[in-house]
Amino acid sequence: MRISQFGDRYTGDTGILQLMDDIVAAQKSGDVCMLGGGNPAILPKVNQVFQKAIQAMAADESAFAQSVASYASPAGHLRFRQTLANWLNQRFNWDISEDHIAITNGSQNAFFQLFNLFGGTNRDNQPQNIVLPMAPEYIGYTDVPVQTQVFKSFKPSIDLDGRRFKYRVDFDQFEIDPQTVALCCSRPTNPTGNVLTDDEVRQLAAKAKAADIPFILDNAYGLPFPGIINIDSQPYYDDNTILCLSFSKLGLPGLRTGIVIAQPALIKALSGMNAIMNLAPSNVGPAALEPLFRDNTIDDICQNDIQPFYQSQAEYAAAQLLSMTEGTPLRIHKSEGSIFLWVWCENLPMHSSELYERLKSQGVIVVPGHHFFPGLEDDWRHKQECLRISIAQPKDVLDRGIELIARVINQTYAEA
Amino acid sequence: MRISQFGDRYTGDTGILQLMDDIVAAQKSGDVCMLGGGNPAILPKVNQVFQKAIQAMAADESAFAQSVASYASPAGHLRFRQTLANWLNQRFNWDISEDHIAITNGSQNAFFQLFNLFGGTNRDNQPQNIVLPMAPEYIGYTDVPVQTQVFKSFKPSIDLDGRRFKYRVDFDQFEIDPQTVALCCSRPTNPTGNVLTDDEVRQLAAKAKAADIPFILDNAYGLPFPGIINIDSQPYYDDNTILCLSFSKLGLPGLRTGIVIAQPALIKALSGMNAIMNLAPSNVGPAALEPLFRDNTIDDICQNDIQPFYQSQAEYAAAQLLSMTEGTPLRIHKSEGSIFLWVWCENLPMHSSELYERLKSQGVIVVPGHHFFPGLEDDWRHKQECLRISIAQPKDVLDRGIELIARVINQTYAEA
Repeated sequence: MRISQFGDRYTGDTGILQLMDDIVAAQKSGDVCMLGGGNPAILPKVNQVFQKAIQAMAADESAFAQSVASYASPAGHLRFRQTLANWLNQRFNWDISEDHIAITNGSQNAFFQLFNLFGGTNRDNQPQNIVLPMAPEYIGYTDVPVQTQVFKSFKPSIDLDGRRFKYRVDFDQFEIDPQTVALCCSRPTNPTGNVLTDDEVRQLAAKAKAADIPFILDNAYGLPFPGIINIDSQPYYDDNTILCLSFSKLGLPGLRTGIVIAQPALIKALSGMNAIMNLAPSNVGPAALEPLFRDNTIDDICQNDIQPFYQSQAEYAAAQLLSMTEGTPLRIHKSEGSIFLWVWCENLPMHSSELYERLKSQGVIVVPGHHFFPGLEDDWRHKQECLRISIAQPKDVLDRGIELIARVINQTYAEA
Repeated sequence: MRISQFGDRYTGDTGILQLMDDIVAAQKSGDVCMLGGGNPAILPKVNQVFQKAIQAMAADESAFAQSVASYASPAGHLRFRQTLANWLNQRFNWDISEDHIAITNGSQNAFFQLFNLFGGTNRDNQPQNIVLPMAPEYIGYTDVPVQTQVFKSFKPSIDLDGRRFKYRVDFDQFEIDPQTVALCCSRPTNPTGNVLTDDEVRQLAAKAKAADIPFILDNAYGLPFPGIINIDSQPYYDDNTILCLSFSKLGLPGLRTGIVIAQPALIKALSGMNAIMNLAPSNVGPAALEPLFRDNTIDDICQNDIQPFYQSQAEYAAAQLLSMTEGTPLRIHKSEGSIFLWVWCENLPMHSSELYERLKSQGVIVVPGHHFFPGLEDDWRHKQECLRISIAQPKDVLDRGIELIARVINQTYAEA
């Protein structure tokens, strides 16, 4: 069989493909200390809530018939979309209905649809770009666009605070040009754990609106759920914003439920893509969780279980790693949200891909940081000095992993 | 917001989009007699089997942690793929492993991946085509390809048998040309209920192999499951075949589980597409049904419940419609499989789209047949003389729908 040129890019092994291959390898080998993937933690109380919710949906003959045994409409499970619209309106005084909500088969699928919806070759065959206001930014965006388009991203400014640091959008450098078709950022940022400030978000939204391009805001880890944000922060939405949410980081990645909130015209286009790509999205997540949005269980587990768990893990892991690497230039991004530590090894005497291989040979998988700079052409040494470390694993795995990472990094600096 | 040229095609309302819009409209209006969609029947015994299977998965802490609470590998749930490989090898003496199997988020998503994998613009920018050996063929293929490619299909020959008929591949007309990148057909055919004979399948497979292009065989309604085939027929697989299966017509369309069986190199490419488009496919269907493949429950419900139900519905509905339209030229394709009647109104004095509107105004939704001739340029009157009627609805809905359809068709011929 001849696989097309289009197909060739799915058989390489960069970016997201390597990340997913790592996960498979680690699944097959029990010995590996897996701090590389994006799998959320399994929290017993939260897990029990979801086990019961799925059991209840499956036990109810009518709920089962309308969800598991039926196709959703292309925009997704109707009753869930109605309930979610109410839930959002009540909490944030938004004014949306089910027509502002599309369900996708996970957040990644939403980005595949969105980038291709806005970023296809334009009528004049001009090269187009999607602007990421700053890199590092999410690895999963990298390989998504199908047609001629590129990411264009900007170096952040860096605030230092001892051995912690924080990226900020450099609005002096940031620009939207005539070829820009969308503005996109994750909040909290995967991989860094940075949370764009409310002011940064407002500025970005205003610049997108002025340029008549959509502002795609990826809150897969953020607000309003799963709410893995450790600082004071507000959700953002307006009629030029495309807000992307997910059930994955609630602890349900195997369900593949993504949610897009946007103006109805865009939801209609996404429904069309759902129909052509998938006939309809999965009903399981929406049908099973709909009652949990009606009785406020979602609020409870986000505030009292999920957020506190990851904040505690992040603080613990950062303190451990910093103390074990005392005397090295290693710094960690402030843990404002998400489920990762973002480690910056300034003046690392090797490329992060080589450090990744060293760590792997010692039995610990992380994600080397150079994958997280899509669209940043700048020859910035920082790009090859970083690692993303998951903090979602149980304490014993995290302890073992952090110790191995510290040992390898200390040794690497010592050899220099 | 500006939506790209690429995006424009998702905001129209032809083909699959119209079909899915019909389903939404019918869901919202309880009064409509919905014989238009592809939703399978809800069979109480079968439904109970699946309700229990999902409850069991959700109740088992470890199974839940490994499926709902975890990402699959990009090829899909590992244990299910192992179990399915064994199940197939035992029954058909195939020699496959989990590396020959990829899970997708439904069969439609598999076709989106496959058509784009093979059918992208080639290195010389030559127009390419996907050959459908005969039309009518599945509406869902129509809008799928992203890049420059077209479907090319052929008129069947027609065997008449009283008021029943059967399409056959016209091997005198059929040809694969140098621009053909894949051969594809559904078996049973959606919409016609035709089942390609074992001999037709062998000939098509041989021609594809000789041309070094893949033979994509869509068994979403067929063998080995759900097995909605009413005549003697064998499943087919070889190392140049891409066999597509689905859980939807078992009664589980809301789970979105598609299955692709092919040589490992192709499965690797599909895994890459899964990773980029979806991160990973859903785990729910594979995890919940895996035990049913181990204890032969799947065989039992296919043979003793699903196949007999649809055969009986098809025979009943066809007999009713033929008797109620006595004296008209209306014919029905032989019900060899699937969940539809394919009705041919020879010399219909209007286009099928107009007949569709008449039926809709009388409260019955079907799918007008002209959508099911992708790639057939021929100016063949037959293309506008057909309807697809679902037989999956309960008897009272089917009775009401058939009566309305017969009345409108009788009246339409009477007016001519």
